[in-house]
Amino acid sequence: MKSFRKELWFESAKRRQLFNITPEIEYCISESKISEGLVLVNAMHITASVFINDDESGLHYDLENWLEKLAPEHPHSQYKHNGFEDNADAHLKRTIMGREVVVAITKGRLDLGPWEQVFYGEFDGKRKKRVLVKIIGE
Amino acid sequence: MKSFRKELWFESAKRRQLFNITPEIEYCISESKISEGLVLVNAMHITASVFINDDESGLHYDLENWLEKLAPEHPHSQYKHNGFEDNADAHLKRTIMGREVVVAITKGRLDLGPWEQVFYGEFDGKRKKRVLVKIIGE
Amino acid sequence: MKSFRKELWFESAKRRQLFNITPEIEYCISESKISEGLVLVNAMHITASVFINDDESGLHYDLENWLEKLAPEHPHSQYKHNGFEDNADAHLKRTIMGREVVVAITKGRLDLGPWEQVFYGEFDGKRKKRVLVKIIGE
Repeated sequence: MKSFRKELWFESAKRRQLFNITPEIEYCISESKISEGLVLVNAMHITASVFINDDESGLHYDLENWLEKLAPEHPHSQYKHNGFEDNADAHLKRTIMGREVVVAITKGRLDLGPWEQVFYGEFDGKRKKRVLVKIIGE
Repeated sequence: MKSFRKELWFESAKRRQLFNITPEIEYCISESKISEGLVLVNAMHITASVFINDDESGLHYDLENWLEKLAPEHPHSQYKHNGFEDNADAHLKRTIMGREVVVAITKGRLDLGPWEQVFYGEFDGKRKKRVLVKIIGE
Repeated sequence: MKSFRKELWFESAKRRQLFNITPEIEYCISESKISEGLVLVNAMHITASVFINDDESGLHYDLENWLEKLAPEHPHSQYKHNGFEDNADAHLKRTIMGREVVVAITKGRLDLGPWEQVFYGEFDGKRKKRVLVKIIGE
């Protein structure tokens, strides 16, 4: 069994932002020389997500809107977590979007469906944050 | 390390429908000859889910109702994604239900708790769609 | 490839309760003698979760509050599942919080970000329930 580990770094310009990281994950797989296995991709921070969905701007607009309805940022005072912090909503938004994805690796490639793309979802940005890529296989 | 890959195909009669796919996953494990490892089961489409819950019709009714409250289908015009499409709600519903499950394989069987059953959740059906089963182990 | 399996047992005093199980998972990894791989940690029951977030009491209060808004317990009669049972809300809460986490193992340790902690989330407690830890790697 072989394994591979890499951290990807992000610094978003906005508080909330989505990054399509599919090419970076593909590149990790080619670096790993693993052709059959699993890749785990997870946010290393608890106010960010890694998830799979469509790379379509209308949908991304809908996601932002919808997450604000289910877990609104304002008023900050509605959350107990927001004593010294103001990011309680980001913890909740990431809970809905998920921390991680596990994707199959087949013949040295990400084994994705036709529209599946891997995203880093930042919900409390404007600072450096990390994604972990861990691959095991052969 | 051994690996195994199979696609399962579904075509739901209704827009939204749940399928208990536990027997199909068990069958994949026996085909794989892998007795200790992990199985990844994921929707290959971004308007469908694979999740684990109870096979109880009352609960399935509650899930349908609840998802319609959190991410209503109508009016289609409330979503930017619904220009040429009408399935934005299905992207959101699948986000809540999750894309994938990872299940342990122990002694050649799915290592599930007493009521755990694996489901394919279709939220934009009436066409052929796929689930990926990837197994690694020994 | 090596594998390791262990069940962790919990009996919460309250219907809903969060347990930080990070030390128990670390201990499983040291028992497994696996230094590079993946650990799957999942609830074996469908009214409980395993998830990763911050060990901060304000946030835990916010999570309880927020889950009660998205999937209220009362009135029990609002759910079809609640014929002989009263725990439909626990199935929904666990759906939002997730069944499982997969975490990288690197150099014999959980490969977590600075604030990531692993929790068992009980939503229908006061009885004995289990978490499965399955590790594969080398």
